[in-house]
Amino acid sequence: MIQAIKWEDGRLVLLDQRYLPERVEFVHCRDFREISGAIRDMVVRGAPAIGIAGGYAMAVAVRECRDLRAGGREERKGHRAGAGTAIHGYEECAAYLKEAAKHISAARPTAVNLMWAVDRVLGRALSVLHAAEKAGASEDAALSDAYAAAVEEARAIETEDLEMNRKIGSYGAALIRPGSRVLTHCNAGALATGGYGTALGVVRKAWEENRISMVYADETRPYLQGARLTAWELSQDGIDVTVIVDSAAGYLMSKGMVDCVIVGADRIAASGDVANKIGTYTLACLADIHNIPFYVAAPTSTFDLSIPDLSAIPVEERSPDEVRGFFGTPTVPKGVKALNPSFDLTPYRLISAIITEKGVIEPPIPENLPRIVKG
Amino acid sequence: MIQAIKWEDGRLVLLDQRYLPERVEFVHCRDFREISGAIRDMVVRGAPAIGIAGGYAMAVAVRECRDLRAGGREERKGHRAGAGTAIHGYEECAAYLKEAAKHISAARPTAVNLMWAVDRVLGRALSVLHAAEKAGASEDAALSDAYAAAVEEARAIETEDLEMNRKIGSYGAALIRPGSRVLTHCNAGALATGGYGTALGVVRKAWEENRISMVYADETRPYLQGARLTAWELSQDGIDVTVIVDSAAGYLMSKGMVDCVIVGADRIAASGDVANKIGTYTLACLADIHNIPFYVAAPTSTFDLSIPDLSAIPVEERSPDEVRGFFGTPTVPKGVKALNPSFDLTPYRLISAIITEKGVIEPPIPENLPRIVKG
Repeated sequence: MIQAIKWEDGRLVLLDQRYLPERVEFVHCRDFREISGAIRDMVVRGAPAIGIAGGYAMAVAVRECRDLRAGGREERKGHRAGAGTAIHGYEECAAYLKEAAKHISAARPTAVNLMWAVDRVLGRALSVLHAAEKAGASEDAALSDAYAAAVEEARAIETEDLEMNRKIGSYGAALIRPGSRVLTHCNAGALATGGYGTALGVVRKAWEENRISMVYADETRPYLQGARLTAWELSQDGIDVTVIVDSAAGYLMSKGMVDCVIVGADRIAASGDVANKIGTYTLACLADIHNIPFYVAAPTSTFDLSIPDLSAIPVEERSPDEVRGFFGTPTVPKGVKALNPSFDLTPYRLISAIITEKGVIEPPIPENLPRIVKG
Repeated sequence: MIQAIKWEDGRLVLLDQRYLPERVEFVHCRDFREISGAIRDMVVRGAPAIGIAGGYAMAVAVRECRDLRAGGREERKGHRAGAGTAIHGYEECAAYLKEAAKHISAARPTAVNLMWAVDRVLGRALSVLHAAEKAGASEDAALSDAYAAAVEEARAIETEDLEMNRKIGSYGAALIRPGSRVLTHCNAGALATGGYGTALGVVRKAWEENRISMVYADETRPYLQGARLTAWELSQDGIDVTVIVDSAAGYLMSKGMVDCVIVGADRIAASGDVANKIGTYTLACLADIHNIPFYVAAPTSTFDLSIPDLSAIPVEERSPDEVRGFFGTPTVPKGVKALNPSFDLTPYRLISAIITEKGVIEPPIPENLPRIVKG
């Protein structure tokens, strides 16, 4: 199975998604700053994958805190300079870790999963330190324990994500009629998660069950996650995939060539309104017009019940340079403006069902949503 | 004004649209084979522009016929070899010209305007030859007269096209409410016509009349006519233009950022159903959902009344390599399929009005269409 994120001998190894499908390269990250740099630079992308990488980054920060303390103590012993890097006492340890958490979370400020995962690992480490302090244990031993606990927590986030995706796959596949030609957008796959994928988890499971005859992948401008990543990971698994330009989806639907649409989600409001990659809303409109089921696949961690509906979801605008060119080749004349909204908003009434690891939310979505998400 | 096609001293000078907006280069074509090669290789594109270039190519073929005849006669006089290139008698002249016409028309076999323009110039040349033969005139003189007539006819096609575009611009601009933010797709502009443009002719006129506050240009994958050509020609004329990816149009409409859509057409059926660049149908669906006027601008020569409706319009599929990469940079993994329908079909019921040089066809379009098109 494709794994975009691997924890090997205390290092985080990331499949560098910027170079796919041309080159399969891995980035080996030794410290938390390298990991947060990789998150910022899109070596790893996709909300769950970013969360997992962030969790490991936080664990690495705990180890760095331990090593810095040890290093600082050694330095003091030898009367060398550089004692400024030393960390004294539990309070300074906690401060260091909180600072690191802030640094990691800032790598992709709008990614809810990143902050959530970093906070979860940070919380685990702090609780170990707190307990050790209360018990009067040595800081060195406490930091080693905290590191082990933090790695365990990061691993748990990863494992839970994979498990959730498998459940989403099973719930979703049951909705797919045998022989279906499925259209997907962007990459909500193994590359974007701890493995298996959300929307592509459904595709994988349905393919396994012979429910899918072929997949259309929208290329997904401007970053081409569909052409580069979805096409790559599906073809790696031997799933029949055909790439189209984003604007061809409507024509294919009008010709009866698409039986259902499955996409992922970046954030889901209490109403069931969905924020996802730019182009998702257009597909939902087109599916509605052509009476084609439109499914959203996402773990319940994607739901933000504090947001009543799409009117309150902020939409990130990324650099217009992504639109103004194509991986280094300019396509728009110099001086001409471009607009690059990265996400769009799909109202629940255009959604046939939202597939979660806890079950399928069917219409009326606003009424059925709390039972599944909180249940 | 931007001119993609210029007739200078018996040569056809074409703005090489393949390199826009990066480089503004011109191709100087001396013989008809060079011109048909340029049409085939997309140096020039857009149905009316292709027609105009084809008309000039046919005129150049008449001159080549004259020169070959003269050359052949010279060769025979000197008893040199190569007399096989000589042309004898009116019959061989006509055969040569018909063969050239076939060659030129084959450069873009689905372009109706190309065949139409070539036939028109060929017809004019043949009628001059026919009259000269009847009058017993010399073939040399007749071919010189035929060449002059052919150039005149090609010029007429160009001038008429420009004139038509100006009329379309005036009729169309009257439909645009002051302050409008207009969305367009592909390039139905000066670069695609004898100048001024059809959809962009409406934009130019409406901009001049202060009816337009800004233009959104869909980048128009896979060939990026919107990003490369529409953005270029509008910015050259000082018109405020912003490029977006094709899949962002729906989001902009949902946010109330688009007041109307204007596109060109490749072919229009008797019903008013429109074939145009892939993505047009999606825009029409989105405009319908959001209650935004959707206008099509095209000269009456675009109407093919022998086709009852869209079910009978053939849709050209171009090479999947256009989708599988980006001007030389591959974006789709090796071995993964792509599908590249170049056009799509928009039913008349999604169209608010079709703007022609003879007037505006308003709903009910099938009823109002014959009066305008034939009138």
